[in-house]
Amino acid sequence: MSKIPKKWFVLWLTWLSGAGKSTVADNLYNRLTDEWFTHIERLDWDIVRENLTKDLGFTKEDRKTNLERVAFVAKLLSRNWVWVISTFISPYETERAMVKNHVSNYIEVFVNATLETCEDRDVKWLYKKAREGIIPNFTGISDPYEAPANPHIELKTWEESIDESVKRVYDYLVNNGYF
Amino acid sequence: MSKIPKKWFVLWLTWLSGAGKSTVADNLYNRLTDEWFTHIERLDWDIVRENLTKDLGFTKEDRKTNLERVAFVAKLLSRNWVWVISTFISPYETERAMVKNHVSNYIEVFVNATLETCEDRDVKWLYKKAREGIIPNFTGISDPYEAPANPHIELKTWEESIDESVKRVYDYLVNNGYF
Repeated sequence: MSKIPKKWFVLWLTWLSGAGKSTVADNLYNRLTDEWFTHIERLDWDIVRENLTKDLGFTKEDRKTNLERVAFVAKLLSRNWVWVISTFISPYETERAMVKNHVSNYIEVFVNATLETCEDRDVKWLYKKAREGIIPNFTGISDPYEAPANPHIELKTWEESIDESVKRVYDYLVNNGYF
Repeated sequence: MSKIPKKWFVLWLTWLSGAGKSTVADNLYNRLTDEWFTHIERLDWDIVRENLTKDLGFTKEDRKTNLERVAFVAKLLSRNWVWVISTFISPYETERAMVKNHVSNYIEVFVNATLETCEDRDVKWLYKKAREGIIPNFTGISDPYEAPANPHIELKTWEESIDESVKRVYDYLVNNGYF
């Protein structure tokens, strides 16, 4: 709780449900909170759902609107010296580009894992329900995902440990002058 | 740009269109920005409309949803050491109470002016259009307003100068240990 950062950022972790976005994000959040004197906010679907996006589902249009609202919040936070760590599936390249255009220092983290790996980790039985048609518009099963063409960081969570993934994001921040 | 604040707040200016909310808020914003080393954000309908609330109109339900989203944003900002100065008509006591419950250090500013005064200041012809029925759900004309029962500050913009109103809010912040 002593060192002051040099720059602020919006870390944008993207990929399928079960890829490990939240796990990496939460571990990184804890490490950064311990080491750095700045504010940090986590943004994800559960956090914004109650007050910001409760009218929205998972159609393409709703996903777009969701990310527009999140991008607005991320912009306000990051320009006021808050580090933002966001975890949204955000399956469309155009919408990730929209977020990038809204904020300064957008860092895209492609939390890659095969669909098979994600489905194996299906702790909430979401994939099972999607396969059975109980959950519609489920990214990877019944809805498309456009993989990032040019992410700043690509994690390979099927072969890296969580600590390795977190370290790779942390090292990126160091190597790019964020602290 | 040198002095550090002691506390953060969400200043909530409320009352009819034309009461002077934005004028007081903008003047206060400029004074605080000049004197204090902290981040400050202004929130109002125009600022949030494009990315946060473009689906919303002026029905009672939409006004409620608008304020829920704004309260969420104000909460995130103020807990990260950003002063927030909000100007929304926010006509219902229950919804102002909702905002108050969401944020720390909510300060309600009743920017009082008679309906006649507000209507005389109708620079955008909003009251004229509301009287003619062109704009529906217009607070004070075709929609109700519940005056704050117990505001922290009540301005009387029909008899105070802008400088006097700004000074009264500023003095409140001084006298209540915000800086």
